[in-house]
Amino acid sequence: MIINNKKFRTIWPNDAIENDGRFVSIIDQTTLPHTFKIVEIENLSQMIIAIKTMKVRGAPLIGAAAAYGVALAMQKDCSDEYLHLCATQLIQSRPTAVNLRWAVERMKQLLLSMAIELRLQAAWAEAANICEEDVLLNQAIGQHGLSLIQGLHATHLTNQHARQFNILTHCNAGWLATVDFGTALAPIYAAHDAGLNVHVWVDETRPRNQGASLTAWELAQHGVPHTVISDNAGGHFMQHGQVDMVIVGADRVTSTGDVCNKIGTYLKALAAFDNKVPFYAAVPSPTIDWTMLNGLSEIEIEERDGREVTWMTGMLASGEIAEVNILPANTRVANPAFDVTPARLVTGIITEHGVFAPNQLKSILNK
Amino acid sequence: MIINNKKFRTIWPNDAIENDGRFVSIIDQTTLPHTFKIVEIENLSQMIIAIKTMKVRGAPLIGAAAAYGVALAMQKDCSDEYLHLCATQLIQSRPTAVNLRWAVERMKQLLLSMAIELRLQAAWAEAANICEEDVLLNQAIGQHGLSLIQGLHATHLTNQHARQFNILTHCNAGWLATVDFGTALAPIYAAHDAGLNVHVWVDETRPRNQGASLTAWELAQHGVPHTVISDNAGGHFMQHGQVDMVIVGADRVTSTGDVCNKIGTYLKALAAFDNKVPFYAAVPSPTIDWTMLNGLSEIEIEERDGREVTWMTGMLASGEIAEVNILPANTRVANPAFDVTPARLVTGIITEHGVFAPNQLKSILNK
Repeated sequence: MIINNKKFRTIWPNDAIENDGRFVSIIDQTTLPHTFKIVEIENLSQMIIAIKTMKVRGAPLIGAAAAYGVALAMQKDCSDEYLHLCATQLIQSRPTAVNLRWAVERMKQLLLSMAIELRLQAAWAEAANICEEDVLLNQAIGQHGLSLIQGLHATHLTNQHARQFNILTHCNAGWLATVDFGTALAPIYAAHDAGLNVHVWVDETRPRNQGASLTAWELAQHGVPHTVISDNAGGHFMQHGQVDMVIVGADRVTSTGDVCNKIGTYLKALAAFDNKVPFYAAVPSPTIDWTMLNGLSEIEIEERDGREVTWMTGMLASGEIAEVNILPANTRVANPAFDVTPARLVTGIITEHGVFAPNQLKSILNK
Repeated sequence: MIINNKKFRTIWPNDAIENDGRFVSIIDQTTLPHTFKIVEIENLSQMIIAIKTMKVRGAPLIGAAAAYGVALAMQKDCSDEYLHLCATQLIQSRPTAVNLRWAVERMKQLLLSMAIELRLQAAWAEAANICEEDVLLNQAIGQHGLSLIQGLHATHLTNQHARQFNILTHCNAGWLATVDFGTALAPIYAAHDAGLNVHVWVDETRPRNQGASLTAWELAQHGVPHTVISDNAGGHFMQHGQVDMVIVGADRVTSTGDVCNKIGTYLKALAAFDNKVPFYAAVPSPTIDWTMLNGLSEIEIEERDGREVTWMTGMLASGEIAEVNILPANTRVANPAFDVTPARLVTGIITEHGVFAPNQLKSILNK
């Protein structure tokens, strides 16, 4: 990823200068798009706060952050007991994210299998492995998604001449949601870089506005044409033939192809289905929860602080960042963070292994 | 309607003290919910600005405001020529609103039929008639909607014991959208006043937040239990059995039952249909455009200023009202104000004549 013309990742380790320890740097995603800020994370509790407050967010990046959280914890105590404790604390910090649990369990199993004195170094190495793997997975997702877009784009050009190919996305499943490249946006970057005339409809994505603040920002950094719309508008554009494809990320996909993603995804999937617009989720295979058969009944949906609905952060005309309250005093709010799109509304899942119809997802297990 | 325990309407005429003229008072809906402010409208151009900037909004209220706009115009010039000019200007101020055109045409036809010297007085009288009729229509809608809710609520209680009856609404079709009582909210107020245990899910309604700022405010003034949710959340609550009914208003309904309402209504109708939740639009019959057969192809959708998406108005912690920009600099936005819900997704239309299935709407013409 390129930020102000410089190459970046969303998370990386650093050697501390004053002692033997290491710390982890992250891009603070709560101050974007107005301020680009790097934050230093020095211990487990800082990492848990960064995950809970969504300084780091996006399923794959949360996994990487949790892995580094374990490494930071090992700097304090490499015992089995502490390893179990920190794993539990990390998993509880965002209950819906399957990658988080996956990464923490992977770290825990590896470290428990080795002698205590080897654990610290192994933890840093394994966290770095998880990051490298994420980058490779996302590059593969980008290539499989590119083939898909090329196919749709070719049909589309025949039918509708040379106007742009419009892809709608919800929330942020881009660079910023991963270590690099993104999931839902990886195919879009690949298509743009391959010279296809893609344009992205960016759902604002209330209540936290990840579309407006993160997706719009990273697409602009990469030079991909895009237009931000309110979450309410996508159905209208689909009714009028102005959306050729939907690609979203996911926080969890069941083995049956139900897609748990940012709240509001289900409404876009319904509209896509009603208007025969292909609807895809792009996920690395660790996001697939092979134990689950029914997303609606089995996935625990995180209920976040109602403050996210009540208060809106942005930049005053003066350039100062401020929060405004948009509700009458003492108004009750509800704030479920995710919803589940049933597999019947999903055209396919784009993974590092290729693109699969929801009912064919299990064939990945044979790869 | 009751505001701070005092009876109000949203619009009313006044005699000016210093000269023979009259002026019109309106509640400024752009400063709610934080500031309750009454604005004086003295001439046609002020009324057009108030309509365009949505100081008055809501299909029925826009009709009443336009009627008073004609009366104000007649204070300057009662000629045929000026009457045609001001009618055209008023109709263009909000192209989607059928009530606006209906009210302006009614005023124009009446005034053109009489001698010039009678027009001024007749204009004030006819605008007042339009307001009184709106109040009566909405009261009738409230009573027909109440019967509907009582029926659903009775079935519901049998099935699910005594928990609350949950109604979801989008945008604001309450007191504030009409002269009094509201359209979509009229049945809800009637049900609450009849002692039914109703609770309202209030869609925030981006980009202008009429749900968050207006519906939540007027429900609170009346004491009706309610919870504000992001526009993205309604489908999730329907999937989990937490919505028993949807009632929205409409800016225009075709003779075939297609419902043109605030952007995002279509997405809620899809979710209601997918989850077998009854979906109703409540409208006075002047909102029905008998000339139209296909809402999607025939209704002109107003594209509003992208600034409504980019900038969010609210109250700083200091109590000061401020606007914050939520987007990266120079981001392109699109802002269609309405969408069309096809009749196939609509359970029924609640009117002053009763409740009609979309394909039975034309029987109103025989009433």
